[in-house]
Amino acid sequence: MRMTVKIAVAGASGYAGGELLRLLLTHPEVQIGALTAASSAGTPLVQHQPHLAPLVDRVLLETTPETLAGHDVVFLALPHGHSGAIAAQLGPDVLVVDLGADHRLADAADWQRWYGGDHAGQWPYGLPELPGARERLAGTKRIAVPGCFPTGGSIALAPALAAGLVEPEVNVVAVTGTSGAGKSLKPNLLGSEVMGSATAYGVGGAHRHTPEFAQNLSAVSGERVKVSFTPVLAPMPRGILTTASAALKTDLDAEGARAVYEKAYATEPFVQLLPEGRWPSSASVVGSNNVQLQVTVDADTRRLIVVAAIDNLTKGTAGGAVQSMNIALGLPETTGLPTVGVAP
Amino acid sequence: MRMTVKIAVAGASGYAGGELLRLLLTHPEVQIGALTAASSAGTPLVQHQPHLAPLVDRVLLETTPETLAGHDVVFLALPHGHSGAIAAQLGPDVLVVDLGADHRLADAADWQRWYGGDHAGQWPYGLPELPGARERLAGTKRIAVPGCFPTGGSIALAPALAAGLVEPEVNVVAVTGTSGAGKSLKPNLLGSEVMGSATAYGVGGAHRHTPEFAQNLSAVSGERVKVSFTPVLAPMPRGILTTASAALKTDLDAEGARAVYEKAYATEPFVQLLPEGRWPSSASVVGSNNVQLQVTVDADTRRLIVVAAIDNLTKGTAGGAVQSMNIALGLPETTGLPTVGVAP
Amino acid sequence: MRMTVKIAVAGASGYAGGELLRLLLTHPEVQIGALTAASSAGTPLVQHQPHLAPLVDRVLLETTPETLAGHDVVFLALPHGHSGAIAAQLGPDVLVVDLGADHRLADAADWQRWYGGDHAGQWPYGLPELPGARERLAGTKRIAVPGCFPTGGSIALAPALAAGLVEPEVNVVAVTGTSGAGKSLKPNLLGSEVMGSATAYGVGGAHRHTPEFAQNLSAVSGERVKVSFTPVLAPMPRGILTTASAALKTDLDAEGARAVYEKAYATEPFVQLLPEGRWPSSASVVGSNNVQLQVTVDADTRRLIVVAAIDNLTKGTAGGAVQSMNIALGLPETTGLPTVGVAP
Amino acid sequence: MRMTVKIAVAGASGYAGGELLRLLLTHPEVQIGALTAASSAGTPLVQHQPHLAPLVDRVLLETTPETLAGHDVVFLALPHGHSGAIAAQLGPDVLVVDLGADHRLADAADWQRWYGGDHAGQWPYGLPELPGARERLAGTKRIAVPGCFPTGGSIALAPALAAGLVEPEVNVVAVTGTSGAGKSLKPNLLGSEVMGSATAYGVGGAHRHTPEFAQNLSAVSGERVKVSFTPVLAPMPRGILTTASAALKTDLDAEGARAVYEKAYATEPFVQLLPEGRWPSSASVVGSNNVQLQVTVDADTRRLIVVAAIDNLTKGTAGGAVQSMNIALGLPETTGLPTVGVAP
Repeated sequence: MRMTVKIAVAGASGYAGGELLRLLLTHPEVQIGALTAASSAGTPLVQHQPHLAPLVDRVLLETTPETLAGHDVVFLALPHGHSGAIAAQLGPDVLVVDLGADHRLADAADWQRWYGGDHAGQWPYGLPELPGARERLAGTKRIAVPGCFPTGGSIALAPALAAGLVEPEVNVVAVTGTSGAGKSLKPNLLGSEVMGSATAYGVGGAHRHTPEFAQNLSAVSGERVKVSFTPVLAPMPRGILTTASAALKTDLDAEGARAVYEKAYATEPFVQLLPEGRWPSSASVVGSNNVQLQVTVDADTRRLIVVAAIDNLTKGTAGGAVQSMNIALGLPETTGLPTVGVAP
Repeated sequence: MRMTVKIAVAGASGYAGGELLRLLLTHPEVQIGALTAASSAGTPLVQHQPHLAPLVDRVLLETTPETLAGHDVVFLALPHGHSGAIAAQLGPDVLVVDLGADHRLADAADWQRWYGGDHAGQWPYGLPELPGARERLAGTKRIAVPGCFPTGGSIALAPALAAGLVEPEVNVVAVTGTSGAGKSLKPNLLGSEVMGSATAYGVGGAHRHTPEFAQNLSAVSGERVKVSFTPVLAPMPRGILTTASAALKTDLDAEGARAVYEKAYATEPFVQLLPEGRWPSSASVVGSNNVQLQVTVDADTRRLIVVAAIDNLTKGTAGGAVQSMNIALGLPETTGLPTVGVAP
Repeated sequence: MRMTVKIAVAGASGYAGGELLRLLLTHPEVQIGALTAASSAGTPLVQHQPHLAPLVDRVLLETTPETLAGHDVVFLALPHGHSGAIAAQLGPDVLVVDLGADHRLADAADWQRWYGGDHAGQWPYGLPELPGARERLAGTKRIAVPGCFPTGGSIALAPALAAGLVEPEVNVVAVTGTSGAGKSLKPNLLGSEVMGSATAYGVGGAHRHTPEFAQNLSAVSGERVKVSFTPVLAPMPRGILTTASAALKTDLDAEGARAVYEKAYATEPFVQLLPEGRWPSSASVVGSNNVQLQVTVDADTRRLIVVAAIDNLTKGTAGGAVQSMNIALGLPETTGLPTVGVAP
Repeated sequence: MRMTVKIAVAGASGYAGGELLRLLLTHPEVQIGALTAASSAGTPLVQHQPHLAPLVDRVLLETTPETLAGHDVVFLALPHGHSGAIAAQLGPDVLVVDLGADHRLADAADWQRWYGGDHAGQWPYGLPELPGARERLAGTKRIAVPGCFPTGGSIALAPALAAGLVEPEVNVVAVTGTSGAGKSLKPNLLGSEVMGSATAYGVGGAHRHTPEFAQNLSAVSGERVKVSFTPVLAPMPRGILTTASAALKTDLDAEGARAVYEKAYATEPFVQLLPEGRWPSSASVVGSNNVQLQVTVDADTRRLIVVAAIDNLTKGTAGGAVQSMNIALGLPETTGLPTVGVAP
């Protein structure tokens, strides 16, 4: 079967938009239509995305219902709070894939507490590796792409919670590259500040991805899961290395833990439980849609420890979006998605 | 037309070998056969190349005529001085692609001066962008892949020398990422030493790529070209940014110089003269087979200045090798080669 | 009071030795005597430490009792297992400061389990910020300098455990620069591997600093403290950012936790509890002997969370060593130790 | 002799201001007075300079004649075009040290062409290593601190031009860290863009430091020196590695060239000609006021090649400013200036 899907990207000047286009340029079923932006409308795309050589002649349009009309799929790579209004103006037959936060949370009160403003509602959640996700994504016309941290952390912890191995309180420290913060002109994101430095931020449950973590893990576990989440900014452009742990309920050892994960992810095309003794590095998945995992048990504290590596822009954002789009459109799920990292 | 070419890689544990495999894994006409190594023979590939997820079950074989037998194409990604003997044991019908230095230089005296030992002879030179190269590569069974510095520098300067715009003495300063030095266990290549530091080395005509530069540029120019070449090691894993200059013979201005380059590279699939006012950055071509170029004239010194960005491992080594292999096999030249960079 | 202390450094070619010399070169009471090494003996120091410009004429001697004789203080910056034999040959009147692990652990069984071989015995532990440490260091002739991870982590957690705020089970994830691994020629420490990558290692209680953590924290707490410790290697030459957490025993809030830390470290010259709302970054303490701290409470999980930044080579190794030497010699504790970081 | 000099810093929130304060905090003759800023006035210094721990309680004042009054020395670390007006309001007895570009160029036409607006006039030039500079700086009340690129490049080339060894046309490619661009919120300076990338800019004589280079070198040479200058931005926070070359007039060899440089810099406290065979790395001078140099001759092109490493913020800006201040005040020139780098 061969189809051509015409896509538009709103927010094509940012990092998420750029990564989407990188992937879609080699997606065999896709034709790239309108590329739009806000303040950058009217400027050449090459000014913002010099690596997208085949699109060197493109100019950014304004993000309006008109420029986005006439496409089969519209990707919204916008700051939070902007997707709801745009999506409402796109027809029900268009597949709308929201890479922002607007449609991730079920609870309007959660939305208001963490993001502020009106809740745009919840859409099918684009993390196919979670139980039941593929069914909800098949044929849908609306997809909420997960946040980058909940992508890595949920894949790291879901099997243990689903199998009832651990207590419903988890500790997550995730080391992230800087592109996760977007192309924001903030002093702390300048190269001079970032290089040579590791910095904690959003500590103590202050990061907006915390409720998304809790929502995912509680759904998997069947009871409310408490999440202590600390992100650390590290001097690298891409990648998230998640270290997640939780107290074991049973006398499982490392081998037993590995067996649970091996089974859970045996058929997942993008999740790789590494050979015993090997630990993930974020560089190994750069540019790919892969998740690399390793799991062990800390004998002294009796905690399960899972380490997961993803590329925040690929599996954590744009690759996850394309994977969910493939499912929604009935394409083979892996179409157009790299499974080989760019290293060193 | 659809063919399947069975390939082997000798030196699959190193950076050049790893990049080759990254590219070949998505090359539609290739089947990956034996992967061999020297001291790493017997160890799993994943220990050396954890990013090559689809090859996680492969084990490295010893590099011998036997393990390399039975393939259509054999890539040699070996330290210099090792390719000649191996190649002599591979049949004349096998396409042998040497990513090392052994078969690049025409002059045995040059080889002895710069590398030492016996000269292995010269093979067709795998830089298709040079005049006459494609003719020499078509159907050949032996390919010498260029050095990474001469790749960027020759593409930067060839049009000016071919058109007789500049004097036959060029100045090249090339800033390179660390993977160009290979996976050598040298103190100066440790992360602690490299990060935060720019270092010059091989200054004053002491780098082994100097005679290769001179050979390429002299052939293009028709007269002996003198080359002053200084490499600078910079804190990045990949990429070469070449700044090349030469004294103008004529009263050409920047616009005129651009016109010459525009014409020279109009149909080259991997060479992009950037829009006026934009300068190359090495990150824009990471993971791709692209060369990004810009050219101008320094009004005060009347020198032509060309800046070129390549990925040393892709266009500068493994991508260039696959491009030349495609030509030799009669495949479309761009088969399996990315034209989109992985950025940021 | 003005004294001149003649010092020797065994292991002057490594990172710890180099940092010691950087500090001692501007220490007003110190005269730099013999500089020794193992395989590098006979080579000029500048080959290994090009940043130590005032020592450009020095040559490395062999590490023997003879070359180390005649000094008031001998610093041992050697691989573990090498200090015991050397120290036994240095007189009881010489102050011996061991930057290695040999004399840190009290328990011979712990030593054998984690390091192997015979236990060299325990010396006064050079972390003056721990209760009672200064008394044990004053006038001593033997000092065991702490490991870099236990330095940051113990300072982060000691006040909470001493005050009985938290349960005796702690979770520590520490992001470290590469110099902590020393100048070892291992593939995973090459710049090409390190840059752009975060990697977990020694996960699940497998890192040798774990028993040292437990020893420190148990002493402070008065009961056995269990430690789950995960180090993450990040692409920066220096710095450790420690994220430590433990379950609160009481209904303390963030303000209350800050008050406990403020009091605990009010007079410490090198420990800075940051103003509320500011979080530590490792770059802010590079090259200084400072520890920057922040503390909060995760409301959902009721865990105390402490983030601490140190320079692993300064406060974490050589600066801590000089601080303890100052105490042992009766010098003002801060002599020769920078309190200003080198940033950006 | 012991004096206390009260200093103010206008522009204390930026990188140059921060580096000045880092140095002045350990300068034995200096007392730090008013710290001022423009848009950041009223905010705590720690928000901008978290590494300056001893100044954690300071608040930034507005930059006005009143806040700057009552100091012996006023440092102006302001964007170009802002120093002239401020300086005119400071009395003739105050030592004013301008770290900006406003008072560097002699020629008003040059100023207008390269910077635009009215020329503020020329002040004694704070590069003591140039012939006659110390005489002009002794006792002066006005100092123009050189640009970071001309600092490294002029020290690299001055001896050769002064001795008449080379033709009056020089080629300079300088690899710089990002802090040279200041704390400007520009997309191309974001960490995500900078890391992993080398980028040329200001190519073809378009960088504003070009006329300053020419002014310095022409003064040394006695004839007009033409300069082709290309800066390259590299992924490191600090440091400049300059590669400078010029055609030799004589049959000098590398040894002879070294002899000229050895003699020229024999008594300079901050200039180190490295031992033969060793090449500078920018990391070796980070945080120090040192210049590390090496010189050779390219036999094929008969060009002199000089490589010089400086820290752009220290010797290239704030350290150079303090060195010149010391001379102007009659203090020992090296007071308060580090000669040991912070590496690795």
